[in-house]
This record gives sequence, C-alpha cells and structure tokens, in this order.
Amino acid sequence: MTLERATSGGLYLQLVNRLRERISSGELSPGDRLPSERDLAISLGVSRTTIVNAYRELEAQGLVRGHVGRGTFVCALEEANTGEGAFAWHGKVALSSLRSADSNLRALVRNTTDSSVISFATGVTALDRFPVARFAELTNCILSERPIDSLSLAPTEGHLSLRTAIATREQVAVGRIMVVAGAQQALDFATRLLVDPGESVIMDRPGYLGAIPVFRAAGANIVGWDSATGGVDELEDLILRFRPKFLYCTPTNRNPSGQTWSERFRRDLLELVRRYRMPVIEDDPYGELWFDNPPPPSLAKLSNGYGIIRIGTFAKTLSGALRLGWVTAEEAVINHLAVIKQRSDVCSPSLSQLAVGALIKSGDFDRHLTHLRPELKRRHDAMLRAISQEWPAGIVRFQRVSGGIFLWGDFGGRIDPCILQVEAGRLGVTFVPGESFYPEAGGRSEVRLCFASQPPAAIQEGVRRLGLAIRHELARNRQPLQQEPLV
Amino acid sequence: MTLERATSGGLYLQLVNRLRERISSGELSPGDRLPSERDLAISLGVSRTTIVNAYRELEAQGLVRGHVGRGTFVCALEEANTGEGAFAWHGKVALSSLRSADSNLRALVRNTTDSSVISFATGVTALDRFPVARFAELTNCILSERPIDSLSLAPTEGHLSLRTAIATREQVAVGRIMVVAGAQQALDFATRLLVDPGESVIMDRPGYLGAIPVFRAAGANIVGWDSATGGVDELEDLILRFRPKFLYCTPTNRNPSGQTWSERFRRDLLELVRRYRMPVIEDDPYGELWFDNPPPPSLAKLSNGYGIIRIGTFAKTLSGALRLGWVTAEEAVINHLAVIKQRSDVCSPSLSQLAVGALIKSGDFDRHLTHLRPELKRRHDAMLRAISQEWPAGIVRFQRVSGGIFLWGDFGGRIDPCILQVEAGRLGVTFVPGESFYPEAGGRSEVRLCFASQPPAAIQEGVRRLGLAIRHELARNRQPLQQEPLV
Repeated sequence: MTLERATSGGLYLQLVNRLRERISSGELSPGDRLPSERDLAISLGVSRTTIVNAYRELEAQGLVRGHVGRGTFVCALEEANTGEGAFAWHGKVALSSLRSADSNLRALVRNTTDSSVISFATGVTALDRFPVARFAELTNCILSERPIDSLSLAPTEGHLSLRTAIATREQVAVGRIMVVAGAQQALDFATRLLVDPGESVIMDRPGYLGAIPVFRAAGANIVGWDSATGGVDELEDLILRFRPKFLYCTPTNRNPSGQTWSERFRRDLLELVRRYRMPVIEDDPYGELWFDNPPPPSLAKLSNGYGIIRIGTFAKTLSGALRLGWVTAEEAVINHLAVIKQRSDVCSPSLSQLAVGALIKSGDFDRHLTHLRPELKRRHDAMLRAISQEWPAGIVRFQRVSGGIFLWGDFGGRIDPCILQVEAGRLGVTFVPGESFYPEAGGRSEVRLCFASQPPAAIQEGVRRLGLAIRHELARNRQPLQQEPLV
Repeated sequence: MTLERATSGGLYLQLVNRLRERISSGELSPGDRLPSERDLAISLGVSRTTIVNAYRELEAQGLVRGHVGRGTFVCALEEANTGEGAFAWHGKVALSSLRSADSNLRALVRNTTDSSVISFATGVTALDRFPVARFAELTNCILSERPIDSLSLAPTEGHLSLRTAIATREQVAVGRIMVVAGAQQALDFATRLLVDPGESVIMDRPGYLGAIPVFRAAGANIVGWDSATGGVDELEDLILRFRPKFLYCTPTNRNPSGQTWSERFRRDLLELVRRYRMPVIEDDPYGELWFDNPPPPSLAKLSNGYGIIRIGTFAKTLSGALRLGWVTAEEAVINHLAVIKQRSDVCSPSLSQLAVGALIKSGDFDRHLTHLRPELKRRHDAMLRAISQEWPAGIVRFQRVSGGIFLWGDFGGRIDPCILQVEAGRLGVTFVPGESFYPEAGGRSEVRLCFASQPPAAIQEGVRRLGLAIRHELARNRQPLQQEPLV
C-alpha cells in the first residue's frame, strides 16, 4: 500500500479509503487484525497521528473495532452493506454535508459512557455534586401538579418560566433570552443565521473543538486568531483582510486554555468590533465557574448587548445531559433564531425547562453554585498536585487558570499528544490532544485535561496512569525504530 | 397606501414592510389601532388572507398585537430597536436564513399555551391520557438508581437502552436506529444530509406544514405531487422532469388529509423509486394510531430499508413536549446523520431517553397504546357527530379516515378558511387553514381539524363555536361590500 504525498489530511483520507476498499472487497475479512498504529506509521512513512485518526474514523464508520491491549480488528458487515442490495447513499449526500465529517466530538461523547476509563477528556463538571434529590423532587412536583403544562409543547423561544428565571439572573429583558438545546445548538443556529458558504469567520484559537465542524459545515472560511498572543491590533488586520461575518470567542475561563480576558482587553475589543460593526458570538459556558473572584463582566454586559450573541448553558453548572442552554441577544436576533429553531426542532422539552426554571427560582441553583465553585478549585489543585508528584519534573507547562474546568499543558515538543493518547487509552485514561482545538495546524505539543469531572482520588489515579504513559513514551522515543513488514 | 400588483406573496411582504416603516418612523404610534382586516382588504383591493397573514407576521415580529374582539394595536418598541444604538443585524443575515422566515409552526405552538382557546389546530394527541404517574415513577427511579447515567451525555446516536427498545419494537438492528429530538429534527437532518441549494424534492401534498420551511431553508425547489390524485405515473413524470433528491411522504394516516396508502400502492411506489434510485423520506408519526385495523406495513418494512429514511416519533403516542423521535435507516445513513446531530446539538437529553426506554421495556408503552387507540376513535366519532349536529348541512365534506388525529374538510369554495380562522379565533376556537399544507397555491377551501387533543365535551363546544363562525361568515358573504376610507 502506498500513499500519495499531499496534506496530512489527504494522507489520512487516502488511508481510510484504501482500508475501506480492502474491507469491502473482502481482501480484509471480519476478525482480521490490522497492523498496530506504530508499525503502520513506520511502514508507510507517515506520522502515527495519521494512522490513529484513520483507525478512529474507520471505527466511527463501524468497519473496525479497537480492543484495548489487543489491537484493531475488522468488523462483520451488516447484511445491508454488502452484496447487490445496498442503496448507493454516498452519491446522494449534499456537498454541505460532505464539508464536515469530523467525528471528534462524537468519539468524545462515546467515551464518556465507558466506566473503566478515567476521562479527563470530556468537558464535564462535577456530576457527583448535582442536586439529584432536589431535582427529582421538583420534577415530580411539576409532573403531578402541572401535567398538561409539562406535556404540552413549549413556545419556540422557551418556556416563559425558564426564560424569566434566566432573564432575572442575567438582568436583561425576557425578550432577549431564548432557550436552546445546549450551547452547541446555539452556535449552530447563530452560524446558520449569519454565514453563507465562502464567507469568513474569526475564531479565537485554540478554541472549542465543537465549533470547528459547525463553521466548516456552513462553508465558512475559518480564520484563526489567538487573543493571547495576537491582541486587538492583529484582530483589526484580520477584519480588514477577511471581512469576517463574526468573531467567535470564549472570553472567560476559555476552552481549552482556561484564560480569562481582562476588562481592559474586553473594552478595547468591543471598541474595535463596534467600529467595524462586526458581530461577536460570545461563548460563555464557564463564566459562573470562578475560584476566588468573579471574572470581569461579559462582553454582552459591557456593550449592553450591542452586536453580541452571547451563549449560556446549564451544561457546566448542572449537567450537559439536560441539553439546556440559552442565547442572550437583541430581540431582532432572537426572532431570527426562533424561526431557525422552529424548523430545526420546534422547541425544547418542557419538563426539564420547568424543572430548571423552578431550581433557579427557588434559589437552589445559586446555592448549588456556591458549593460547586470551591469543589472545582479543590479538584484543580488536586490535579496540579498529582502532576507535580507523578510526572517527570519539567515535562509539561500549564497555563495558570482562575476558574473553569480545564488545564492546558504544553509538552514543549518532547511528547506527541496523539501518540500519548493511544498509550494512555491502553492504561485506562483519556484526554484531548491539543490539535483538536485549532482550525488549522497547531497544538501538536499541547493537551487539554478536564479536572472537574472526577473526584480527587480518581484524579490522582488518572494522573498516575498518564505519568506512566508519558514515561513509556519518553523511553520509546529513545529506542531506535525497527523496520517491519509493510501492510 | 398603494401596493404594486405582483404575486400575492409579494403583496403581503409589501404590506408588512410598509406598516413596519410607518411604525418605525413614528407615523403609527404605540397604542394606535390598525384598520380591521376586512376594511383594509377592501380599501386595498386585496384578499383578506393577505391582510391576515401580514398582521400575523407583524405580530410575530413584536410590532403589533391582536386582542380578541378589540382589534390589532401597535406595540411599544424595545429601547434597543429604536434610536442610534441598534446594531444593524439585518444586513448580516445569511441568504440561507432569509430563504425561510415562515413562522406558521411557531404561531401554532404559541397558541397551544392559551387555555381559554379550544385548539383543533396543533397536532397534539390525548395528553390527558398520558401515563403521568408511571412516567414520574420511572423518572424518579432512574434518577435515584442511576444518577450519573441520567446526568452524563448520551451517545450521539442515542442512549443504547432506548435505541434497543425501539429496535426491538421495529424489528431492525440497533445500528439502524438513531434517536433524535423529535420528527422535525429528523426531517431537518435528512434534508441537510441530502439537499444542496437549487436541487428539487418531491412532497406529497397536502403534507406536513413544518416540512415546507425545512425544504425552503435548504434552498430546495419543492415539487408538489398529490398521491391521492396523481398516482405513481405522475410521480414518474416528476422524477424524470426534476431529478429530485428525494420524495417526502406520510403513507399512513397522512397529515393533514388522514389518508393511508394501500399495500398495493406502496409496492408500486417502491418499485418505481427503486428503479430510479430515488431516496424516500417516510414520515410516520401516526402509524401506531389506527382505529380498527393496523395499517399496511411501512415502506421501510416492505423494502427492508432499501433507500428509505423512516422517521418515527413519540410526539403523537406519548407527548411532543418530550422532543423524542427516531430515524430508521441503513447504517451508512445513520452514521451521516449522527455527524450532523453531533455538530447540531451533540445528543438528546439522557433522562427522558432512559425514561421512555424503560416505559417501552416494561410494556407500559404498549399498554398505553391499547388504551389510546379506542380513545382517539371515540374523539373522532364525537367530532363528526358534533359537526353533523352543529354545522349547516352540506357545508363541508370530510375525507374518511381510519386512524391518526386529523380530519380534513373541504368547504367547496363556500367559505374562505383564512377568514373563518379570524372569526373562529374571536370565538375561542382554532384550526389550521388548508393552504398551510401546500408548498404552492392550494387548499384555499380546506381545513384541518385535530380531533385528538380535546375530550368529547370540549370537542362538542369547539365544534359549536366553529359552527357559529361559519354561520357568521355565510351571513356576511351575503352582505354587499361597503367602501371605506383608505388606510
């Protein structure tokens, strides 16, 4: 098997396609073991990252399956996928769907359900601190006292009780709040509202990995800007050069790097975007999750909403499985977004809207936050402490954070996080390699660890396993490479 | 005020724009009363439907507000919408978003929350028969016994327990089932998967009104086909002429007309679409809701899934407020749809998936259906009986139905349903005029009544009110029209 040299993305697709052909032609049969990632990388002369991604994609397509410690095996095909009976769907797929077939996020979500693995990968908050009993009590109460209200469709913009509860906390008019099925939906809707294929958007990067496929699917040209190094002047250059439809950013406890913009930086940026009349999508899932002091006011607050679509969510304060978030924006925008939501999923589920609305109104939500914040700080401190105990000294540098749920580390070129990820997976711990957070090349030496999802004992154990994986990698890097047979 | 003659859609938009300008210029002030629909229609020489739609749109935009029996008034504008501070969002909106600003469905959903109105409009099932106590019990039990499972993100394709429960009932492999946030989302995803702007889709019409904005937003050219009159030969002509990406249809207890395709018709159609390799989106929300005998097998069943994307939902069997539905399709399609869902809303809420999965597994769901079916038939019979008692003899003809939740009536040109709707609204009863179910002109004399949502006493009262509205309209139509001053 040989691959044509092109971009690394091209190599990866070629590899996926070749292996798929070999599987569908029967050259590789169900149960056959694929070469190890390392062996195949060496034999093809490509990076192991390419192989890892290709295998992950084949797995997502249901063609192969990886078993920890045993290798990757060809799956038995569904009857419908073989023989003359299969419908040729591929030729029917729209260009706009082909633009983004990224399954990073999906793979992450899938991993969260495997309880033998300690996950530092998904951005999940301390679910063990969720007020389960209170939530069950409220849900029961609503179902028995207001059954028809719980079972009837809510307005597209959201149930008035939840909109009002959010609007009161946010100190904006109810008409400026729309309930959505999580921050991802808000981002998808805002992008569909604003972007036509071929237009540019600016993304503060490294940034939320789930934003990248949304922008790609909309046909957007993603222009990366790093607020931490580029500053407002570089942003102005990019605005002049690309005439972007919007800036997408996470000013507070940013995913993945955990950084928070100063109020001064926020004001400078607002002055700039106002001058160019460029909308900003302010993603703000972590604003409530500060350790010692609240962050500066949101862009939406500082600008009184002018030109800002702010995205909020209960995913990081309560639970992502609720699939409840909201948009704060001018009413003109809310009306447009509601038309999109109406044709996308009509409205969000009523019962959970009523329950979360009641949780806020009763004060339980704010009480929960006062317990959650110090708990997150404890976990943050526990992870840093464990790393300093368990990992080789000086192997990694972490950005200092003042809230949120992530640590962002840099191995300074000593470790390839994509290869470390495979090794870590074998030892039962996961994280996300840095390159997932860049729309273009970048992050090849960086990792994101979520410290919020595990209690301190599991953090200690996960960090220990990661330390083992790091030592293995360091040891292996010192060994000479052995040539092994081609695929 | 004069309007340029063009299409009626053009007139309506002109009217909306003119009135909006007058409001924003201050020529019409908050609290001003707009002319009555009837007066304005006469003075402008346009149909009352145009006026009704324009007022409805202005109301959706928050510019005016209708008060039953008092008229339509100009609203006070939000501070942010006036003066120099407003961000000019309109110029930022993507073409693809401008393609569909239809707010029919949103208005319908909004109406369901007004309890003084008897609604025959929304397609809501007998919510008063929902097994509330059992559902609450299961929800409680899941929250207390499996808190982390309920609070963790489900896989994008759906929680395995619910997928398995659905797959077992549907007798297909689990890999062919994907859970979605309701049938609307399934339709949106399937359309985004298959359609690029400018491509054609065929819609069996009259058909689901919520499908039309989905196709429009995708930039599709909607080709209407009426299975009841056109038959398979006409479909073949349309396929040859438009090379459509798919056929969208509801073969069983179709919305709005209640018709069910015979097995013979299904087989003929499947033979045709297989020959042309044209995918079919089979919308099947009402398949379980038969009165005396189960309907013929679904297209998906008859074709063993070949080329069919079948949409199922719990909206009509349990409650739409759950926002839970599913897609049955070949695994290749499920994988594509999962990538779209991942970037659209990541996954569906976990708790409701677990609860509905448990409801199915315990047998409670099937027991519920055995009670629901005869109840729906009782309500259907009650509505027909009330109509024969309360309405002028021979004023309407209904299609005979053998299941589902709708009656589809034709006034044979004697009544304009759009005007009747206004009158009915004043009397506290709603329905949907026929033209909402046609992608092009059509249905000007037809109405859809949902008989499922109200208990028999409310059906009787609603039908009585509608009868009054009909008699008013008939009486008014006999009066000579009076010229009144222009706007």
